[in-house]
Amino acid sequence: MLKKITGGITAPKGYKASGVKAGLKKSGKLDLALIYSTTPASAAAVFTTNTMAAAPVIVSRLAVEKGTISAVVVNSGCANACTGPQGLVDAQDMAHITAELLEIKDHEVIVASTGIIGVNLQMDKINTAIHQAVEQLDEKGYDNATAAIMTTDTFPKSCAYEFELGGVPVKIAGIAKGSGMIHPNMATMLCMITTDAAIASPVLQQSLTEAINLSFNMISVDGDSSTNDMATVLANGLAANPLIDSISHADYAVFTAALTEVCIYLAQQIVRDGEGATKFLEVTVQGAESFSDAKKAVMAIAKSPLVKTAFFGQDANWGRILCAVGYSEAVVNPEKISLAIGDVTIVKEGMGVKVDEKALKNIMEEQDITVTVDLNLGEAKATMWTCDFSYEYVKINGEYHT
Amino acid sequence: MLKKITGGITAPKGYKASGVKAGLKKSGKLDLALIYSTTPASAAAVFTTNTMAAAPVIVSRLAVEKGTISAVVVNSGCANACTGPQGLVDAQDMAHITAELLEIKDHEVIVASTGIIGVNLQMDKINTAIHQAVEQLDEKGYDNATAAIMTTDTFPKSCAYEFELGGVPVKIAGIAKGSGMIHPNMATMLCMITTDAAIASPVLQQSLTEAINLSFNMISVDGDSSTNDMATVLANGLAANPLIDSISHADYAVFTAALTEVCIYLAQQIVRDGEGATKFLEVTVQGAESFSDAKKAVMAIAKSPLVKTAFFGQDANWGRILCAVGYSEAVVNPEKISLAIGDVTIVKEGMGVKVDEKALKNIMEEQDITVTVDLNLGEAKATMWTCDFSYEYVKINGEYHT
Repeated sequence: MLKKITGGITAPKGYKASGVKAGLKKSGKLDLALIYSTTPASAAAVFTTNTMAAAPVIVSRLAVEKGTISAVVVNSGCANACTGPQGLVDAQDMAHITAELLEIKDHEVIVASTGIIGVNLQMDKINTAIHQAVEQLDEKGYDNATAAIMTTDTFPKSCAYEFELGGVPVKIAGIAKGSGMIHPNMATMLCMITTDAAIASPVLQQSLTEAINLSFNMISVDGDSSTNDMATVLANGLAANPLIDSISHADYAVFTAALTEVCIYLAQQIVRDGEGATKFLEVTVQGAESFSDAKKAVMAIAKSPLVKTAFFGQDANWGRILCAVGYSEAVVNPEKISLAIGDVTIVKEGMGVKVDEKALKNIMEEQDITVTVDLNLGEAKATMWTCDFSYEYVKINGEYHT
Repeated sequence: MLKKITGGITAPKGYKASGVKAGLKKSGKLDLALIYSTTPASAAAVFTTNTMAAAPVIVSRLAVEKGTISAVVVNSGCANACTGPQGLVDAQDMAHITAELLEIKDHEVIVASTGIIGVNLQMDKINTAIHQAVEQLDEKGYDNATAAIMTTDTFPKSCAYEFELGGVPVKIAGIAKGSGMIHPNMATMLCMITTDAAIASPVLQQSLTEAINLSFNMISVDGDSSTNDMATVLANGLAANPLIDSISHADYAVFTAALTEVCIYLAQQIVRDGEGATKFLEVTVQGAESFSDAKKAVMAIAKSPLVKTAFFGQDANWGRILCAVGYSEAVVNPEKISLAIGDVTIVKEGMGVKVDEKALKNIMEEQDITVTVDLNLGEAKATMWTCDFSYEYVKINGEYHT
């Protein structure tokens, strides 16, 4: 139903983007991105729950509450977090400078920052860069925008799809930047989504929340929300589909499915680019009494450094997986639990079974590995995506100096 | 008040110990320990809360409930966890063999195991080893017993003290084995304490719970309880102090302080021997509204891989520390928080302050480092001990094959 298309974040009708060099990154790479909708768009966003929320989070929360957004301005290299009253003034100024140049209101601008915590923005550089970014706004500006939000990411993360709403072709696209995979790195996860679908802001908010719960909340990032995490979606209605004005609208589920697909794709890309990752793990806990139990168990597995180091060492160390399930607080009957890695069952009724060691070894050597735990107690199920835990993770995070 | 003495776990009156080679460890090192009180002792224990609790935990829980214990038998090399009904039979047999040889009841024996999960005990080897261990019981057997419970530990952990209860000299001693420092390693933390104090079992249980809450529960181990965690204390009364028969007894606080000292010493030794650890970190959160808030915040800091890798890299990355406080769910006012590393204040009112970089660098290069966060909201305080997170951790856990 969803068709992959090119054109990145500017593939939907009426969007322009740019990415410029503000000079905040020591590397001299692109570090300021602008996304602009020529028509004011419905907007929704999900923000970090961290009590030390960064200044741009505070400013953008207020903007999104008003419901209509025309631009998203993002800098990398500096998180503008733990920066006190000056940080708030700077985040507001970022919105103001952008709004003035685009001839929109300050509260129609979402501001996001990512990078080092505790350092104030160099506003002269930001000011110059926003001027350049507005000048360079272009329907083909998606690659620069995607690159400009990156920090320790090793590849850009972007996708675009076409689908139909009430017989009308609609486009949706997104970009994201990633993070360390256990706790998030500083100023972690940013995701910006654009669509030309017509959907009211409150409905869009509900749709985004549903999508996030099955995607970004199911990678080992959001549980330990950073100071700057943010996912936003703009919907400018230029596709002219019948307006989705309530969650009981016939097209709501179709739109939400598409939005979820975008979010899962970008979330998985973030895991694949996890700092130092050599393996991509899809972990499912099924047969749980409730979704809450399944989620607790799957999160405990996906976050366990011992499980993750075992996969790095290509060791099918099922004891560590069961141990994580055991401390997860999920309802478990140790005598009913079974466990498979790939298609090889290695635990039945809570005990190890004889396995085809060679088949298992082949699976452990692959890059993509599935882990399936069956609690055999009910029908509920949850899936998470995570990566292994390598020397490289320690190196990146030990050497990323403030 | 407490005087350090020699003699390890057998320093208190009436205890003998031994450590022998059962052949469960591939290395051929000592792997079965026995501790014996010539007089039946009051007993208390704290066990893992993991729902996949190992067979010896289940057996020992029942034994301790009866209140009188004469022997503790421990094997390393095999956790006897996730081993089904046969595992339970084997744990009971370990108690039975020991009891028969010592002419005591099965339920007067505590059984503990540590090592690989999911493998059944080789009971022929265990049987032979218990026979040897009983034969070799000796008042000087403490070193062998201490060595026989080790797994990935790089040094033995033991202490002994003398103090007074109601004017009577009393001795207390303990041994422990360690674990990985983030999540516990498989079959993690074992601690066996002996004392010749006279104290009733229910009172001893309360005292142990208080001691554990300020020691083993304040290193980053117990939050993610392994399948085999266990701390036990035997009190055989041979010191002939006035029996501590209630928590309102005048000597209760003195005894509990001594027991807490033993537990803190052993817990700190476990941190110092954390897998791959190069730094010993004492983290305090003070000025919290409640102890619960202080504990939440201090645990978030002490468990954060990003904080721990930063200390490995000798980087005073205070943004990561504040970020951890932010997601800890403790009540925080970002504008009031301050932070010091060693005696150098680096954050005031939520913002970085100018610091003496050279003084800070000197502190970060030391092996023992204190981190103090002041929430400036109240009077409550909590301290945790943790270590840094190095390449070596990944190496040990990636290469520890099942």
